[in-house]
Amino acid sequence: MPKQVLEQLETPALILDEARMDRNIERMRSHLRRLGVSFRPHVKTNKCIDVARRLLETPQDPITVSTLLEAEYFAAHGVKDILYAVCIAPNKLDHVMALQDKGVRLSLLLDSMETTRLLAERARATRRHFDVLIEIDSDGHRSGVTPDASELVEIGLFLESAGIPVKGVLTHAGSSYDCASIEAIRAMAEQERAAVVLAAQRLRAAGIACPVVSMGSTPTALFAEHLEGVTEVRAGVFVFFDLVMAGLSVCRLDDIAVSVLATVIGHQHEKGWTVLDAGWMAMSRDRGTAKQPVDQGYGLVCDLDGRPLDDFILVGANQEHGIMAHRHGKADRALHLPVGTQVRILPNHACSTAAQYGNYKVLGPGREITATWQRFSGW
Amino acid sequence: MPKQVLEQLETPALILDEARMDRNIERMRSHLRRLGVSFRPHVKTNKCIDVARRLLETPQDPITVSTLLEAEYFAAHGVKDILYAVCIAPNKLDHVMALQDKGVRLSLLLDSMETTRLLAERARATRRHFDVLIEIDSDGHRSGVTPDASELVEIGLFLESAGIPVKGVLTHAGSSYDCASIEAIRAMAEQERAAVVLAAQRLRAAGIACPVVSMGSTPTALFAEHLEGVTEVRAGVFVFFDLVMAGLSVCRLDDIAVSVLATVIGHQHEKGWTVLDAGWMAMSRDRGTAKQPVDQGYGLVCDLDGRPLDDFILVGANQEHGIMAHRHGKADRALHLPVGTQVRILPNHACSTAAQYGNYKVLGPGREITATWQRFSGW
Repeated sequence: MPKQVLEQLETPALILDEARMDRNIERMRSHLRRLGVSFRPHVKTNKCIDVARRLLETPQDPITVSTLLEAEYFAAHGVKDILYAVCIAPNKLDHVMALQDKGVRLSLLLDSMETTRLLAERARATRRHFDVLIEIDSDGHRSGVTPDASELVEIGLFLESAGIPVKGVLTHAGSSYDCASIEAIRAMAEQERAAVVLAAQRLRAAGIACPVVSMGSTPTALFAEHLEGVTEVRAGVFVFFDLVMAGLSVCRLDDIAVSVLATVIGHQHEKGWTVLDAGWMAMSRDRGTAKQPVDQGYGLVCDLDGRPLDDFILVGANQEHGIMAHRHGKADRALHLPVGTQVRILPNHACSTAAQYGNYKVLGPGREITATWQRFSGW
Repeated sequence: MPKQVLEQLETPALILDEARMDRNIERMRSHLRRLGVSFRPHVKTNKCIDVARRLLETPQDPITVSTLLEAEYFAAHGVKDILYAVCIAPNKLDHVMALQDKGVRLSLLLDSMETTRLLAERARATRRHFDVLIEIDSDGHRSGVTPDASELVEIGLFLESAGIPVKGVLTHAGSSYDCASIEAIRAMAEQERAAVVLAAQRLRAAGIACPVVSMGSTPTALFAEHLEGVTEVRAGVFVFFDLVMAGLSVCRLDDIAVSVLATVIGHQHEKGWTVLDAGWMAMSRDRGTAKQPVDQGYGLVCDLDGRPLDDFILVGANQEHGIMAHRHGKADRALHLPVGTQVRILPNHACSTAAQYGNYKVLGPGREITATWQRFSGW
């Protein structure tokens, strides 16, 4: 097949810069190696076996998933050690057992006596073994029991008495996405570490082995200074990075490995608008940078080689229309890009933008598209 | 196959209430019949042939699409009269010609002399016929030439001289989504009508036949009082409706035909939070009600029969976690829904929420799931 180049793609298309991705993966891996913890990458961002193969050193390596469909898909590609990092609901247990029957070692999460009782009941009724971690709330962000809660030990003891050994404790410092500085991220990483380690210590003091101590978010994973007591780290978005991560100074703009290729389809000259064929369906509705010091609208516009057209962002988006303009609304500073010009747009949030696409167009050197990698959606 | 009921679905799932959908379609159809205009439904909201079959009286009926993939898909299901309602970019013309070769009568849109010249050049080079409409800007919302612009007639004359007859003029009053009252929507409908009719009159005065005069958005289509001079109306979201439309008083809450089925997976009792397995991936990141008088967060929570749990909304969302709480943050007013309880969540925006799913679970009487209808995504 003849080589395809960027300019030949119909737009919008999701472009994945392979060299940047490989560099981002190596950065995380070498950092965690230095800290002496194992890595259980989160594949919810990429939902693509070709990306996961870069993340894993062998197919025996562990992964983290956010849906049971991710577990199904990666298991079908040979991955067997899978952590489902969302608290389990009783109506998903049939599906969990079907995965176990396919040879998947699926670890489940829970954070309450209520779910513990439901699970124990089901384990007894089905004579099944479930691998269970207890979710710890290290930052008030969403789920989890606090590390000092009496319920934590109660859950642990109940599980063990029901013949379900506690595999470990897990936390996710989602609040790291709201940190104002790298210093604050470092402090958040230490808060996350201390919370999950305290939880493990309390369980161990109660006679529960608790071998796994799992934490992670991209910011805290990359900026943790030490991870004493932690056995594994989880992170996902670092593979691609995005404008939210750049806004946090967790990466540079030129580390962002995903972008949306779009075409100029018109202008509203007197307003300084350039209309693109990439709207919110192509970018997602994520406005994660709206709360950051620099609001990037629906995305930062770059030229075809990925160099930012400074100060030009998508100031608005309809379903299939993106409105590119100067970020401060300076109509007289409009760029005059002819109809048909292609641009690349860096997204606010890699997870949500990538979810709008069925594949990645993999960008190699010299604008060459070296591969098309399929990704999936849904549950 | 034994009947499946709502409670048996794994969550999250997209539920489509068939009776509500049919009622919504009949409402639009009878209104437009009264106004004496033909209907070219927009299928961007549903992206599903089973829904489109309810919308169309015969497969020969016309449709509106927002992507060429929609054109491909509906053409493969026998629909041939298709309007691609986004201004055409030169790099899509090969695809357009491939669709023509499959027997599709695809109408294209443009709004500038720049695109007109590019298209005329391509028509000459390929000896192809293109059906072209000129987009009119009736509300300053995004694309189009204003109806009084000299460029409008210039485009028309250039097209005709290049042997490309002007099929018509088209406008979309996207600003109707920002109207504060039904009175304002009626005024917007009249503004939209007057603009597109003026554009047609100016072209006709210049000797251009301009047979098609097309307008539409769900609010203006439903509340237009007369449509003199208009030949066809386009609208899409009315099939499902959503919280944004209900916030505009365009529909009632119990007209909303799509909802997300979710399961309670945990609680943070002291905060009044109920954690659900439907986060922004299940709801989309759309926060369309944020600018309305009643902000519905990421969605309004209902019981399994679709009755709103008054004042309980998704106040926050992570990728696969939704946080349900009292809309005014009253922790003492929390509902205590046990883990495993299923709820249904009405979405802000049907187009963006439905786009997160590969199918609709069609809800019939008595919580019965009568069918699974596939839908597609991408470009």
